[in-house]
Parts: sequence; C-alpha cells; structure tokens
Amino acid sequence: MPRTHATVEAAVRVLELFDADRTEWTLSDLARHLNQPTSTVHEQLQTLAGVGLLVRLGRGRYGLGWRLLKLSSALYGSLPWYAPAHDAMERLARGTHLLAFLCVLHDDSVLCVARSVQGRDGPPVAGELDFELPAHATASGKLLLALAGQALPHPTAAFTPQTLTGAAAWNAESRSIRAQGHALSRDEWAPGTSGLAVPVRGEGGAVLAALGLSLPTARLHAAETLLRKLKDAAAEVGWTLGHRG
Amino acid sequence: MPRTHATVEAAVRVLELFDADRTEWTLSDLARHLNQPTSTVHEQLQTLAGVGLLVRLGRGRYGLGWRLLKLSSALYGSLPWYAPAHDAMERLARGTHLLAFLCVLHDDSVLCVARSVQGRDGPPVAGELDFELPAHATASGKLLLALAGQALPHPTAAFTPQTLTGAAAWNAESRSIRAQGHALSRDEWAPGTSGLAVPVRGEGGAVLAALGLSLPTARLHAAETLLRKLKDAAAEVGWTLGHRG
Repeated sequence: MPRTHATVEAAVRVLELFDADRTEWTLSDLARHLNQPTSTVHEQLQTLAGVGLLVRLGRGRYGLGWRLLKLSSALYGSLPWYAPAHDAMERLARGTHLLAFLCVLHDDSVLCVARSVQGRDGPPVAGELDFELPAHATASGKLLLALAGQALPHPTAAFTPQTLTGAAAWNAESRSIRAQGHALSRDEWAPGTSGLAVPVRGEGGAVLAALGLSLPTARLHAAETLLRKLKDAAAEVGWTLGHRG
Repeated sequence: MPRTHATVEAAVRVLELFDADRTEWTLSDLARHLNQPTSTVHEQLQTLAGVGLLVRLGRGRYGLGWRLLKLSSALYGSLPWYAPAHDAMERLARGTHLLAFLCVLHDDSVLCVARSVQGRDGPPVAGELDFELPAHATASGKLLLALAGQALPHPTAAFTPQTLTGAAAWNAESRSIRAQGHALSRDEWAPGTSGLAVPVRGEGGAVLAALGLSLPTARLHAAETLLRKLKDAAAEVGWTLGHRG
C-alpha cells in the first residue's frame, strides 16, 4: 500500500470513530482504543483539526468539524433527484406519522441517505440511526437488490427467525418484488419492526433510490393504504424527474 | 509541516474541488487544474476512491462518494439541537413559501448547515447554494457576529453600495441587533435580495444557530409578520432544548 493511501486511510478510520454513539474523543481514549502511541494519534488529530474535519473542543477533547458538511452538501447538490425525493419523504412522514427514509444501493450495501426528522408516533425503531442497513433484512435493501437483479450479499446474518437467508427463498422473493414493484419486510431485522419500500425512478425508468417507511409490525394491517401513499409520492418525484412510466 | 498533515491536506483540497458547480472531474482535468503530475493526482484519486470518499464513475471520471454522508450524518447526530431546529425550519418554509435556513458561526465564517428543500415562490436567491456565507453581508452572519460580540471580519468586500464595511457602522448595527434580538439585511449581498434572522437558543440561553429567511426585497414590507413567525419558531425550539427565556 503506498504511503499516501495508508495515511489517508488511517485518517478516515479515526474520523469514523466519531459517530452518533460517541461524538467526542480525547487523545488518550483514542490512543487506547486504536492501540497506538499517543504521539501518532496526536499527529492525526492535529492534522484532521488542521483541515477542519475535526474540531478541538478544549482540554484534549475532539469532535467532528463543520467542513464535513461542506463536502456532503456538495454531494447532495450533485444529485438532481435529491431535493424532490427529500421533499416527498418529508410529506410522507407528516402524512403518516411514521419514520420515512431514502436509501441507495452501493455495491451490496444499503445506505440510508436521508431520514425524516419530523416527530413520529410510537417507540424507537430498530436501526433508526444507522447509516448502513442490512440489505437482506430491510424492505429498502430487498427492493434495491431485487431491482438491480443482485444475489443476496454474503454473509447474510439471521437477525430473527424471519430473516431471509437462503438463495432459493431469495430468488422467489426477488421475483415477487420485481412483479409487484414494492418490498415488504416483517420482523426480519428486529422483532416488532416492519418496513415498506418503493422505487424512485428517473428518466428512462432508472432506479435512483428507495423511498420507505418503517413501522411497528402491529400497524402492518394498514399496509395497503401506506403502499398507495408511497407509490403516489414516488410517482410524483418520478414525474418531476422526467419518468413517464 | 509534517508528512501526515501535508498528505491529508492535499486529499481534502482535491475533495473540495468537487462542489455543486462541478460534481465530476477527470484525472487529466484535475491534474491540469492543480498543475500537478498526472501520476501524483492519480495516486490521490485512487486513495480517495479506496476509502470511499470519492467514487469512480467510469472512463477516468470521479464523483463524491457516499462515505461522506456517513461522516456528516454522525456530525448531525452529535448535535442535540439539530432535529428540532431542522423541523422548525421546514415548517417555516412551508408556512411562508420562502427559503429558510440554519447557520452557525465558525471562527468568523458563517456556515449554512441546513436549507429548506421545499418549493418556494419567486426567482432564485443570491447564494442559494453556497455553504459559506459572507458574515458581514447576510442577516444570519450579522446576527451571529453581533451576539458573539465579534468585530467585522477582514477583508469586508463591498458586494453592493448597501454592504456594511466600516467599523463604526458595524458597532451601531451590532448594538441594535443585540437590543432587538434579530437581524435584517437589505440588498447587502445582492441587489433585490434581503434576509431576516433570529437566534436559536439552548439551555442557559447559549446561541446555537441562526434561523433565517431569504426573500425578495420587494417583500420586506411583510418583515414584521415574518419576524414574528421566526421568533415563534425559534422560541419553540428553545423550549424543547430547555431554554426558558
């Protein structure tokens, strides 16, 4: 591995230790966690603070820096579908009082690129704050994999007895998702939590993202109504983006 | 400058060339732009793609990668005020059909950390997509500088004849902003565009962010009504965060 690669990778590894569960680190805690000399970690922290990706909070404590948002706002700005899809997601959350989100497929990972920040009813939902979702155990993941014609990623952890793990079961599920144009997950990631997802399509019908809802399984009886709302919302975004399907 | 610092800084410099105006770069264009050997730039691009901060789009073209969003979602997740303030901002945009936003002060830069993505009335507004705003020529910037008791940053470019540039004028403006608890900008950044901003305060009255609206100057006659809406929205967020002011 060339020197540049190793240096930048080490820096990104340090950055990613700052997450929703752990928003601050001290030099000494980081050095202990990474099992590296304090001097090495100190140099990395100084470097990341120097370019604005971290910020010094005082007394050796560090947090994530605003410069990250500059970069991510450029990424969002580069996606012509993001603004209309985000708008549709927020409307959906307000109209259903459920957690709505947008996911994309990256290799065989499902990334949750936006979530409604509106208040919603009910207790917290499994994976509510996760950025990477298990593709085989979520409605959005199954939808995106099926529409891309992809196999289940390996390894496929069985989170609950309902988690889909076998290739034969996936083939049937995948065909059914493609035929129906939506995906449903029921207690497959966490007992009591279910999901619904439909595709957001752009010009020529290309699948841009999954628009989904997370809900207590007890509320799945309303799935028909919710699916209609999801499909209407996705169709409206598609229309804005030139999809005439 | 130690080797680590230089390497990471160069990588961040490459990343920041990808912005809303230029979302894709080819190796040869980048090397020309940076006036560096193709081999050096190629190594940097491979490194950034290797850690997921860039993504290869095919035929030597690169774009920003999703991993940035993982990092920025951790940053948002680390801010307890972000969700309620974002919610208030979106409600405000829907209620006024204007562009609403949240800004923070970082040293003497004003960073726009969130914008309403809702549709709004009227033509595009100056700086609508910028991440860094000129502190002395925007309502949010003037508000945050005044409440922090800071001087005008130097240099203070005069964007229009209305831009505030002198220290004496700023002292008077700053006092008036602190007394009124809001800031107004009128044609100070771009002719025809004005802004209003109020503080979002947390526990103990600490200023967390500016909540603002951007509007055509022709609509400033409604400033009283808009300011009431802004103050109500900010007060509601403050209440959620424990500010009893």
